[in-house]
Amino acid sequence: MNGRDMYALAERLYPICRSITGYGLRQTLEIMAGAVPLEIEGVASGTRVFDWQVPDEWRLDAAYIQTPDGERIADVDRHSLHLMSYSLPGRRTLTLPELLPHLYSLPQHPEWIPYRTSYYEPDWGFCLPHQRLCALVDGTYEAVIEGDLSPGELNYGELLIPGRSDREVLFFSHACHPSLANDNLAGLVTTCALAQRLLSMSTRRYSYRFVWAPGTIGSIVWLARNQARLREIKGGLVAVLLGDKGQLQYKPSRNGDSEIDAAAAYVCGRRGGRVREFEPYGYDERQFASPGIALPVGRLTRTPNGEYAEYHTSADDLSLILPEQLEASLDALSEFVDVLEHNRRYVNLQPYCEPQLGKRGLYRKGGGEALPDRNIAMLWALNQSDGKTPLLDIAERSQIPFSVLRDVAAELESSHLLEGRGDAEEGSDS
Amino acid sequence: MNGRDMYALAERLYPICRSITGYGLRQTLEIMAGAVPLEIEGVASGTRVFDWQVPDEWRLDAAYIQTPDGERIADVDRHSLHLMSYSLPGRRTLTLPELLPHLYSLPQHPEWIPYRTSYYEPDWGFCLPHQRLCALVDGTYEAVIEGDLSPGELNYGELLIPGRSDREVLFFSHACHPSLANDNLAGLVTTCALAQRLLSMSTRRYSYRFVWAPGTIGSIVWLARNQARLREIKGGLVAVLLGDKGQLQYKPSRNGDSEIDAAAAYVCGRRGGRVREFEPYGYDERQFASPGIALPVGRLTRTPNGEYAEYHTSADDLSLILPEQLEASLDALSEFVDVLEHNRRYVNLQPYCEPQLGKRGLYRKGGGEALPDRNIAMLWALNQSDGKTPLLDIAERSQIPFSVLRDVAAELESSHLLEGRGDAEEGSDS
Amino acid sequence: MNGRDMYALAERLYPICRSITGYGLRQTLEIMAGAVPLEIEGVASGTRVFDWQVPDEWRLDAAYIQTPDGERIADVDRHSLHLMSYSLPGRRTLTLPELLPHLYSLPQHPEWIPYRTSYYEPDWGFCLPHQRLCALVDGTYEAVIEGDLSPGELNYGELLIPGRSDREVLFFSHACHPSLANDNLAGLVTTCALAQRLLSMSTRRYSYRFVWAPGTIGSIVWLARNQARLREIKGGLVAVLLGDKGQLQYKPSRNGDSEIDAAAAYVCGRRGGRVREFEPYGYDERQFASPGIALPVGRLTRTPNGEYAEYHTSADDLSLILPEQLEASLDALSEFVDVLEHNRRYVNLQPYCEPQLGKRGLYRKGGGEALPDRNIAMLWALNQSDGKTPLLDIAERSQIPFSVLRDVAAELESSHLLEGRGDAEEGSDS
Repeated sequence: MNGRDMYALAERLYPICRSITGYGLRQTLEIMAGAVPLEIEGVASGTRVFDWQVPDEWRLDAAYIQTPDGERIADVDRHSLHLMSYSLPGRRTLTLPELLPHLYSLPQHPEWIPYRTSYYEPDWGFCLPHQRLCALVDGTYEAVIEGDLSPGELNYGELLIPGRSDREVLFFSHACHPSLANDNLAGLVTTCALAQRLLSMSTRRYSYRFVWAPGTIGSIVWLARNQARLREIKGGLVAVLLGDKGQLQYKPSRNGDSEIDAAAAYVCGRRGGRVREFEPYGYDERQFASPGIALPVGRLTRTPNGEYAEYHTSADDLSLILPEQLEASLDALSEFVDVLEHNRRYVNLQPYCEPQLGKRGLYRKGGGEALPDRNIAMLWALNQSDGKTPLLDIAERSQIPFSVLRDVAAELESSHLLEGRGDAEEGSDS
Repeated sequence: MNGRDMYALAERLYPICRSITGYGLRQTLEIMAGAVPLEIEGVASGTRVFDWQVPDEWRLDAAYIQTPDGERIADVDRHSLHLMSYSLPGRRTLTLPELLPHLYSLPQHPEWIPYRTSYYEPDWGFCLPHQRLCALVDGTYEAVIEGDLSPGELNYGELLIPGRSDREVLFFSHACHPSLANDNLAGLVTTCALAQRLLSMSTRRYSYRFVWAPGTIGSIVWLARNQARLREIKGGLVAVLLGDKGQLQYKPSRNGDSEIDAAAAYVCGRRGGRVREFEPYGYDERQFASPGIALPVGRLTRTPNGEYAEYHTSADDLSLILPEQLEASLDALSEFVDVLEHNRRYVNLQPYCEPQLGKRGLYRKGGGEALPDRNIAMLWALNQSDGKTPLLDIAERSQIPFSVLRDVAAELESSHLLEGRGDAEEGSDS
Repeated sequence: MNGRDMYALAERLYPICRSITGYGLRQTLEIMAGAVPLEIEGVASGTRVFDWQVPDEWRLDAAYIQTPDGERIADVDRHSLHLMSYSLPGRRTLTLPELLPHLYSLPQHPEWIPYRTSYYEPDWGFCLPHQRLCALVDGTYEAVIEGDLSPGELNYGELLIPGRSDREVLFFSHACHPSLANDNLAGLVTTCALAQRLLSMSTRRYSYRFVWAPGTIGSIVWLARNQARLREIKGGLVAVLLGDKGQLQYKPSRNGDSEIDAAAAYVCGRRGGRVREFEPYGYDERQFASPGIALPVGRLTRTPNGEYAEYHTSADDLSLILPEQLEASLDALSEFVDVLEHNRRYVNLQPYCEPQLGKRGLYRKGGGEALPDRNIAMLWALNQSDGKTPLLDIAERSQIPFSVLRDVAAELESSHLLEGRGDAEEGSDS
């Protein structure tokens, strides 16, 4: 999947009215299952998950307002944002003053439809452009919400790509937002493409797990159902909002000192991106950062939630995401994986003075010119390989690209000058 | 006591001729005892205190110079700075050339009287404006110092305000300077006002001890007499020079890593103040910072000693201190106390994922707008409360005011989501 | 030896055609032995030294090219750089197209002769100004290299100046470069002068070892022959390129946290110099920094290798080095030694409050003026002397010159207020 393919998948998913449960979410996961072999899981309403409970399932058939002159406005068939998510079904006849408290708009952006939800507080409402709201006349309105809010299930998609080690790297993207392009479709299609790429690799050092689930309640459900497995999670990324034209931004995990954090910061830094400060607010990394879970799961985005004007409005549409940005995000995620796959500790087998590279054909003739970069990289790898220092630390200290160090380390290993000593973090051979 | 009251007390104390012993010091402590229930302690001359000895008591009755034409100049009754402190009593008849080595003035500020002392080197001298010194004519002068330098006692004032814990927070201000307003009266009246405020609190977590004593020898005397108690001293502040128009400045304790330092730096930072580097020179914090004592006692001032032109001259008069600055200093000290009183460690009782704040009435409906500050503060408190991290650390990391975190922590404790786990430093419940 | 003497020695050594073995190297060491009592060591060709082998000895008698019209060019008698070092002896008759691959020049600096070597790859070549190379005409050339490449020995000079402790501080300068002034003569003459200065001291705390040896293979040989002694090496400096007009630059040792690093950084900083980042490329510090050796040996230079245009060309001649810079480099090395000699830990014998300096004649009368620097330095020394903090740490924290602290510490020791507690690093009395 290249940038165009990812964009095309986003186009297909865009019109669907998703929520944290229901038809739209299931349909979304089914379409994604056409691209990667994910499993769709279902968890019954009422299931207790830590401090929470899986809510009733919200199934929506139609929703609109009929004006006094018979016009249908705020029709969810025309735009999925017109209805506040989890609105209670019903057919209500109201005067304009009775209707107004149930209407939401954005006075500062009078042409945009806002995105509103009320998952846990029983309520209903419609969202519409402020200019349309202002044009409403007195009279009798009918607010129609056809559907059902009753026990059912909450769904999520999951895919495990096994590696040589049982240690897992996790990618999580929320899948509950309706017609919003950057804030969730971009994450869904980029992680789909990453999963495809990982599946195409002949072998992998780590196992990789992808979870596509509703925001907040979805990550809580997954964590509650997988408590026994958490000790196998090396860490991971919440990968979302990856399609806009902004630079990459990495929000570190709660402790911020893991290999995951170092690899993500490295990948971000190489692309002119920014490493933010940790904060407990954000997306699903919040659950992974809770003190009882405390897994090294950071968050990779472009412009984060709340920091662009179109966020959570109808203006976060397909024009806000760009194929080349989706592809560049995929490249960054791929390099993140590449760093984890090759970030090993080595030990120098000729540690007393420098080994003579020349007699092994690894060195060039001396003289007045600068040493080639590849030889400088070899000197770094040899000098720092004490069995404790992973390649990524050497890359950061030397400012030499990780990929160059990865390659010279392999070459030096072939020449019996270096020997791999296992993972960067675990200290075991692999 | 508000700023006006504090200023009025300073006005009363201003004319008194204080020194490290004697009438003026005792009178000062007696006046302060009218504001707070301090005890006046006395230590006999000759008492050994560490490497020092309590000096003879200096009792001054009168001092002046009679000029050849019969005028009395440099009369200590007109300004207490006219006499070098601890000048040897005597009535001396001298020519001008004999007198001049005993006269001190400030050529750069010809209208100001300098402040001079000679506590430990037997000497005498008079201080006067340079312009008056230059106008002296040849002839016979009489230098009169009536009084007594003989065994007596050194006095200091002390007040203990007990709290639930025996752990003490100490406030020290020197009380030995004569008619100098910022450099000592400002400290005396501000700490008096703080003591009144603490006395008015119904209960206190810590005990608070105030010591008003002569500089250097006074803190040495107090430390020598209270060695057994030092292990109960959590730390404290030398609180002096708090009335001028400069910003607050905090000089950290010797190690600089205590809760006292963090609280004082926080209070200073909130007011645009500055945290200085530690240095061994300064005021009485020097004694607390000696390697054998090494208590976390910092120093809170506005413009510190030696850094304003009027320092240790007659120009450090009542016009240099401002009621509103005294009151602002009191507010800062009060917030310092408030931070210590509430800087607890909490443990999150629902640490697996975020608790559902909504069902407890602690959360507002989701949507496109930013989360309210109060909810962000709750997320910080919940996320960081692992039983080890005190609230002040959370305030510093999150840039959320301590008082907001203190309030949401109390609210979360009421909702059984947090549980207090004791002091920030001691690790014991309180 | 002052700057002029050092320069004069460099002038004497300049014309000699040095290499990593052979006549020129031996002659250089013999001339230096006239200034300091160094021993000349010899190691047989073929000796294995870690991953390397001592090469055959290269003895050169004459070398030049005869042009078709009978002119002798690139004559090593006129400039030692004309011949690629370690060129295989032989008398070769060639056409211009056959000769050209063996000629080296610098098109960007058409008047300079480049410096080329081929120690470990059998080859031969001549170096000449680009403008001369361009003027060569078609015809038959004779390339003459008279000499011998056969088993012999590799030489280096060594001098141990014993101190009270067996712990050694090492100075290393490479001695293999032919007529290049800054890049090697400056290092040789500066370390010679330092050795003279150390010899003239009546006693020394540490022992000092000087090694003047060929680059790379020389340090490897020395390390291989002295493995049992390495545990006595406290650390040291590779001292080279010390004559040009650039500022001092210090490259830290591999770990960068030793007393050697602190002392060198201090000395550099005092002179407006710069502390660089560690990197594994450079001069002989590379061998000391290898993971199996890992001695705290840094590198002190002015403009380092490769960072000035004249580097490794005939333009690095006697005009590039300045007597005053050589002398300033010697001063820096001398201060480095002085810091090591006096960087002791002290314990305050009157640690409870400040001692009364006045009664010991160490203090001046109080008053409105600032305390003299010397008294401030005493307060720092007393405050920080807890038996663990070396004087250099106090100098860095206080920004007081080390020499001032050294002097007041001695004065305070005489007054029985401080007591020395041994070396900064070893923790043993000395």
